[in-house]
Amino acid sequence: MLLAQLGVACENIPVDLPSGQNKQPAYLALNPRGQVPLLEDEGELIWDSQAILVYLARRYGGENWLPTAPLAMARIMQWLAVSENEIQYGLARARAALQFGAPWNVEDCQRVGRAALQLLEGQLEKSAWLAAEHITIADLACYPYAALAPQSGLDLAPFLAVLAWISRIQALPHYVGMPNMIEMAGK
Amino acid sequence: MLLAQLGVACENIPVDLPSGQNKQPAYLALNPRGQVPLLEDEGELIWDSQAILVYLARRYGGENWLPTAPLAMARIMQWLAVSENEIQYGLARARAALQFGAPWNVEDCQRVGRAALQLLEGQLEKSAWLAAEHITIADLACYPYAALAPQSGLDLAPFLAVLAWISRIQALPHYVGMPNMIEMAGK
Repeated sequence: MLLAQLGVACENIPVDLPSGQNKQPAYLALNPRGQVPLLEDEGELIWDSQAILVYLARRYGGENWLPTAPLAMARIMQWLAVSENEIQYGLARARAALQFGAPWNVEDCQRVGRAALQLLEGQLEKSAWLAAEHITIADLACYPYAALAPQSGLDLAPFLAVLAWISRIQALPHYVGMPNMIEMAGK
Repeated sequence: MLLAQLGVACENIPVDLPSGQNKQPAYLALNPRGQVPLLEDEGELIWDSQAILVYLARRYGGENWLPTAPLAMARIMQWLAVSENEIQYGLARARAALQFGAPWNVEDCQRVGRAALQLLEGQLEKSAWLAAEHITIADLACYPYAALAPQSGLDLAPFLAVLAWISRIQALPHYVGMPNMIEMAGK
């Protein structure tokens, strides 16, 4: 999504997760964490989704997607942290449990996921974008599992500001979603 | 710790967590997440530990603690992500379960915590500091629960590079630890 927004072309190389290719020595030599995505750019390997967002924003986005002024950057980091905590361990895990049988406690994850949506709602009632007067990587990091919340068993209907924000993101030129995301967000 | 390294004075205002002061409306108005720490600086409120590290590094640390070049910043973000994931949900949760009776599965958390230590060890076998040729907020973010690993039921003895890194951090001028940390790290 950020690559599309930045107009930067890339080649996608699939990694076969079901067969465990990501835990084989050849892949672990590239990314010791054994996760996807992994970015290669100008001969450098960068692992971790948020590190990749930060890299691309700084490398190709000037000050637009990740400003470097102290307070502006801190505001973005707050929402990257929400994405790594309440969203990842709440919304994403509830979805993984419900959709793919992952061994997480659905109710516990939904409780954390609901807290994530409330945090987003509280901010988005006050501002169109999470961390600045324009879209930043904070919005891109929080967006996917928020828009997929119905797959986590959580109803987005009470979260009016979140729904409006989802619509704003989906209306972006060069928008790229995940399968079923637009349909699910409207439910 | 970062404030001490930067030589920036601060006032500490305790929040009574056992009584739930952090979940009361007065505190939630300052930090909607209901967590500590919360930083106030120049009239602005910043929540989330990592956002606070980023803010202080950018505001008072020049390019030393958080460089802004794309690749340099991405390298730091990688370890902030490990701190927010494997360290927080592995090492810190195993410690919370063992030391304070938190309701987490100790073995699951220890497995994730061991992966965190292996990631740190892999990097620290190659470099003295995690993300640059000098100490950065990456080291400060990963350090506390790594040094407290014995309280998570994990033995640091096999992690020679981690132990050497802990010693380097504890030898810093203006080092600030947590209770029992130095003693535990040596075990």
